[in-house]
Amino acid sequence: MIIVLKPNLSRKEEAAVLAEIKRLGYTPHVMRGVARTVVGAIGDEREHASLEALNAWPQVESVMRVQKRHKLVSREAHPQNSTVTTRGVVIGGPKFVVMAGPCSVESETQLMKTAEAVAKAGATVLRGGAFKPRTSPYEFQGLGEKGLKLLAKARKATGLPIITELLSEDHAEMVAEYADILQIGARNAQNFQLLIAAAKTGKPVLLKRGLAMKIEEWLLAGEYVLANNNRDLMFCERGIRTFETYTRNTLDLSTIPIVKRESHCPIVIDPSQGGGRADLVASFCKGAIAMGADARLIEVHPNPAEAWSDGAQQLSLEGFAQLMGELKPFIAAAGRE
Amino acid sequence: MIIVLKPNLSRKEEAAVLAEIKRLGYTPHVMRGVARTVVGAIGDEREHASLEALNAWPQVESVMRVQKRHKLVSREAHPQNSTVTTRGVVIGGPKFVVMAGPCSVESETQLMKTAEAVAKAGATVLRGGAFKPRTSPYEFQGLGEKGLKLLAKARKATGLPIITELLSEDHAEMVAEYADILQIGARNAQNFQLLIAAAKTGKPVLLKRGLAMKIEEWLLAGEYVLANNNRDLMFCERGIRTFETYTRNTLDLSTIPIVKRESHCPIVIDPSQGGGRADLVASFCKGAIAMGADARLIEVHPNPAEAWSDGAQQLSLEGFAQLMGELKPFIAAAGRE
Amino acid sequence: MIIVLKPNLSRKEEAAVLAEIKRLGYTPHVMRGVARTVVGAIGDEREHASLEALNAWPQVESVMRVQKRHKLVSREAHPQNSTVTTRGVVIGGPKFVVMAGPCSVESETQLMKTAEAVAKAGATVLRGGAFKPRTSPYEFQGLGEKGLKLLAKARKATGLPIITELLSEDHAEMVAEYADILQIGARNAQNFQLLIAAAKTGKPVLLKRGLAMKIEEWLLAGEYVLANNNRDLMFCERGIRTFETYTRNTLDLSTIPIVKRESHCPIVIDPSQGGGRADLVASFCKGAIAMGADARLIEVHPNPAEAWSDGAQQLSLEGFAQLMGELKPFIAAAGRE
Amino acid sequence: MIIVLKPNLSRKEEAAVLAEIKRLGYTPHVMRGVARTVVGAIGDEREHASLEALNAWPQVESVMRVQKRHKLVSREAHPQNSTVTTRGVVIGGPKFVVMAGPCSVESETQLMKTAEAVAKAGATVLRGGAFKPRTSPYEFQGLGEKGLKLLAKARKATGLPIITELLSEDHAEMVAEYADILQIGARNAQNFQLLIAAAKTGKPVLLKRGLAMKIEEWLLAGEYVLANNNRDLMFCERGIRTFETYTRNTLDLSTIPIVKRESHCPIVIDPSQGGGRADLVASFCKGAIAMGADARLIEVHPNPAEAWSDGAQQLSLEGFAQLMGELKPFIAAAGRE
Repeated sequence: MIIVLKPNLSRKEEAAVLAEIKRLGYTPHVMRGVARTVVGAIGDEREHASLEALNAWPQVESVMRVQKRHKLVSREAHPQNSTVTTRGVVIGGPKFVVMAGPCSVESETQLMKTAEAVAKAGATVLRGGAFKPRTSPYEFQGLGEKGLKLLAKARKATGLPIITELLSEDHAEMVAEYADILQIGARNAQNFQLLIAAAKTGKPVLLKRGLAMKIEEWLLAGEYVLANNNRDLMFCERGIRTFETYTRNTLDLSTIPIVKRESHCPIVIDPSQGGGRADLVASFCKGAIAMGADARLIEVHPNPAEAWSDGAQQLSLEGFAQLMGELKPFIAAAGRE
Repeated sequence: MIIVLKPNLSRKEEAAVLAEIKRLGYTPHVMRGVARTVVGAIGDEREHASLEALNAWPQVESVMRVQKRHKLVSREAHPQNSTVTTRGVVIGGPKFVVMAGPCSVESETQLMKTAEAVAKAGATVLRGGAFKPRTSPYEFQGLGEKGLKLLAKARKATGLPIITELLSEDHAEMVAEYADILQIGARNAQNFQLLIAAAKTGKPVLLKRGLAMKIEEWLLAGEYVLANNNRDLMFCERGIRTFETYTRNTLDLSTIPIVKRESHCPIVIDPSQGGGRADLVASFCKGAIAMGADARLIEVHPNPAEAWSDGAQQLSLEGFAQLMGELKPFIAAAGRE
Repeated sequence: MIIVLKPNLSRKEEAAVLAEIKRLGYTPHVMRGVARTVVGAIGDEREHASLEALNAWPQVESVMRVQKRHKLVSREAHPQNSTVTTRGVVIGGPKFVVMAGPCSVESETQLMKTAEAVAKAGATVLRGGAFKPRTSPYEFQGLGEKGLKLLAKARKATGLPIITELLSEDHAEMVAEYADILQIGARNAQNFQLLIAAAKTGKPVLLKRGLAMKIEEWLLAGEYVLANNNRDLMFCERGIRTFETYTRNTLDLSTIPIVKRESHCPIVIDPSQGGGRADLVASFCKGAIAMGADARLIEVHPNPAEAWSDGAQQLSLEGFAQLMGELKPFIAAAGRE
Repeated sequence: MIIVLKPNLSRKEEAAVLAEIKRLGYTPHVMRGVARTVVGAIGDEREHASLEALNAWPQVESVMRVQKRHKLVSREAHPQNSTVTTRGVVIGGPKFVVMAGPCSVESETQLMKTAEAVAKAGATVLRGGAFKPRTSPYEFQGLGEKGLKLLAKARKATGLPIITELLSEDHAEMVAEYADILQIGARNAQNFQLLIAAAKTGKPVLLKRGLAMKIEEWLLAGEYVLANNNRDLMFCERGIRTFETYTRNTLDLSTIPIVKRESHCPIVIDPSQGGGRADLVASFCKGAIAMGADARLIEVHPNPAEAWSDGAQQLSLEGFAQLMGELKPFIAAAGRE
């Protein structure tokens, strides 16, 4: 770490800082500059987090971290791309993967109809929410285990593996019994107990980015999964909160090259949540593919206007099939299948 | 709700929208303006959330909500201020309450020393973290149940009721056994399962505001507590994320008059987390008192520079006692005790 | 406009609101809902902005605008795409346009070398800053008129039209004498006097988006150009401020489909400023092309590490030529030339 | 500056970085840590801004600034508080100053009535906008020079010095002829040409904070005033843009102790713009006084509901007089007059 000292300290004041740095297990290294004295604290920062407390000392102007804080998710730790495989579907490989299905599972008819349509159009994973986190306690909270059973039924009918959201530690075992991939939602992106519970099921985990999360925080949240002995982690960008009111969120496609550079884990884009508007989904998908995303997670409903949640952002079955066609030249241009 | 139609619709296209509004349980009321036709949908919005799905219709330009979404926490539902009482301490009444103690419980000596000092200086609630949510899995995660036992011991010695953070549904019963007030942290502010678990313990709940949470979302998260039959809710502002890098967060004191206007629940300010800097705490406390906060939650440590977490924002024991003196004229000016 | 009244008003209190609405030129239309009474004010909102003052009335809960505020820049006003032409280069047409050159003009050698290299690689507009807005008064502020003269010389040598930033009303005439397109920078995006001065020169104007600007505000700033009788307006997305610290700004590619939907004016992407990192430029360009941008504005320097400003985000001459090749399949996929 | 190198560089790659640091005028100082090698570049950063270009080098992981960038506005440069005096009114001294008046000058009657009322209630500076920056070109843009003349007339009648906004370089001389203090608005906070023009008039300058401006950027914008030989600078916090939609802006009172710590210049609070709601003004004023602000700038109108701009945030004459009474105990508690 780098500690910048305030100007005009006495030697005694300075010595106290150096002694504290030593006490905490680092070797101090002093550099006297023109306007400031700077101390380098030599030692592994990931084992001595407490140096930041020096900010509280009257002698100290600032403390700067030198090392990155993420380890297992980092590209340094694993230079090749890693892949996640579930029931034969590989995410992070040469094939661009499409995960599609309704925002919420509402009924057997709705789900089966959607599952068959998306499978036919080329999706290889089925998405569907059985437990829904809702801003208000008075909104539809999902069908619960009944929804999970319907998802399992749809998997049986279509062969598509299932991704669904886990939102309670208490449900981890139950959800893992039915689902092939566990999704952690944006509001729970720093619910570390839930991340640990998800990791421990052994199922692949798709971690959505929180609404106001820095990329470093996202990578560190992912670190909770890998540090709990689960290597099957995917990151999913689904829009951040900005000042814009035209869209519900602002899809941050710039995360694609950044996550690819910093981490070996696959990156998935959710263009439906990203803008909250079905009419923007096609353009967002084209951008995501061109920029190197590994998969997209997309909301499809037989009748969006009657959906029990988030109708404005779901594509119709026909809209989805048409989109799959439109994207082909971009997938080819990006060198994917 | 208000539905704004796109210009130049045919009567048939318009009729389809009106039919859908009726089907969803509202009575449509058409107003023809100069540039747009607007439809008022008469009905209780809190029972028919799904009208927003009309945004997905090609005929619709926008859908606007008329009613506020929070009910039980609202000032309309309970015009008087409500108070929360624990072991004789009343929050929300004429007395300005001080909750003080270390960020993390580290050892018996550290905790007892702090508890006695803050009690002597005038604090009436003891704070201390036993379970710590940390951005990185490699940072100190708290002493766990051992920390809770130390808190109970400190309560016995000083008579101060205890507030501590709950961060896992699985711990709700255990933490409630020791604590007098359960704190829900900023990262879990929309972890609705945790809010429900906390509410169900029957203990008072202090709900911190999330880093990028709108006030309406905060009130709705509080609604999860009251809707689960627990009326002892307090809101706690602890700083929002802004672009500023001088401080860790930006303490948003403007929430004090706003929460007071919209809700009957007490509002608490956390000036330690708010800026992440001990040197700003005094000024933040003065502002909070002048603006009508009911209590403050403040971090105090016998030796901040050696703290295991967040040293930069903790006050020393002497600093805390001095602050208590400085604040007296402001408490008097605000008409509090 | 829609005015939502507070609950439980007396008829007299309500009548006062209706009278005021009439006085301001609107026809009030009352709708009584289950929980709230709502008044529609019939009339052209773009001629009566003052209704928002009703927010100050104790009887009023909220005032909502129905119409969009932008006129001349809107797609409604001009359903076809508009194009901007300068010295034979058409922006907004079938050809994807590349504007390239150094962040700052530093010397004749630097500029001529760059101009020739970018022309050879396929750029059709030359960019270069002669006046630089700098956060600190102690940083390099540009060569001024000397820089403009060098740009004119480079235009003569290569035939490329020139785009350069205008940052003072007092310079409008001088800059317009040399430049083919005037660029308005992010910090001046709501400097309306400068926008008017730029519009009045009659030269095409490229308006960058402000750091924290909503799209509606951006469109309205563009409205200042069209309302001053200059139809040659382009919007340029160059990154917004977010909480992310990995990049200097966050390039918001989602503006491409949104601006295309709301406006007829061309949309240009600046991937260099967007991330502030040369290593992200290629990915950003691919996304921009796939999503339908009309042009990109890109920083190129013979030796980025020695640049007098923003070295970290400039491409080398070789890097630029290589990028032009990489982008070809994406331009083809997007159906552009 | 501190340059962090990438791991596993060859000696030759490292030597190239060191050579470049020397070439740019610094002395490099190498520290070999456990995971990274760090180079301290010894030299005055305020004279060699270009080191950040090293970020573009493949050998470099990050470049960190050690020194603060502001000089003349800094507390280090001028340890005592500075004061601004105009027509006998001292801002920054023991007396808490109140600047009050209408958002826009609308007519002689409106202005004179307001001026007399605020003077009687205890204000000592008169505010009023003659040139108004408006988001849309179709909104009221102010009375222009006619408004300035009315302000001068009101000054003559009441003896109050005048503060008014300057929004065009071309108006600097004219506005300075009438006004006693020039206000630079939030949208122009980084319009450096305007800041220079304002500074050169020799009149005191009140610099509002931009909507998304970091404190360092604000201080550096102020630096443009002092660096142009005008020492009469005041900073004015008027609310930042956040995600909150309950208020128009979020008044950031935490700037008061921060600006006081970093700078010697007076700090003024604008609670009217800060929230955009008259009903929050009293609470904001109390907080501002308790936290050590030097003055407040407040909007008052004889009939807020009929105001031509920003009616929702203006106080009535009676409301203003009442507020002045309510604030007295807080001014006393803060040790001000």
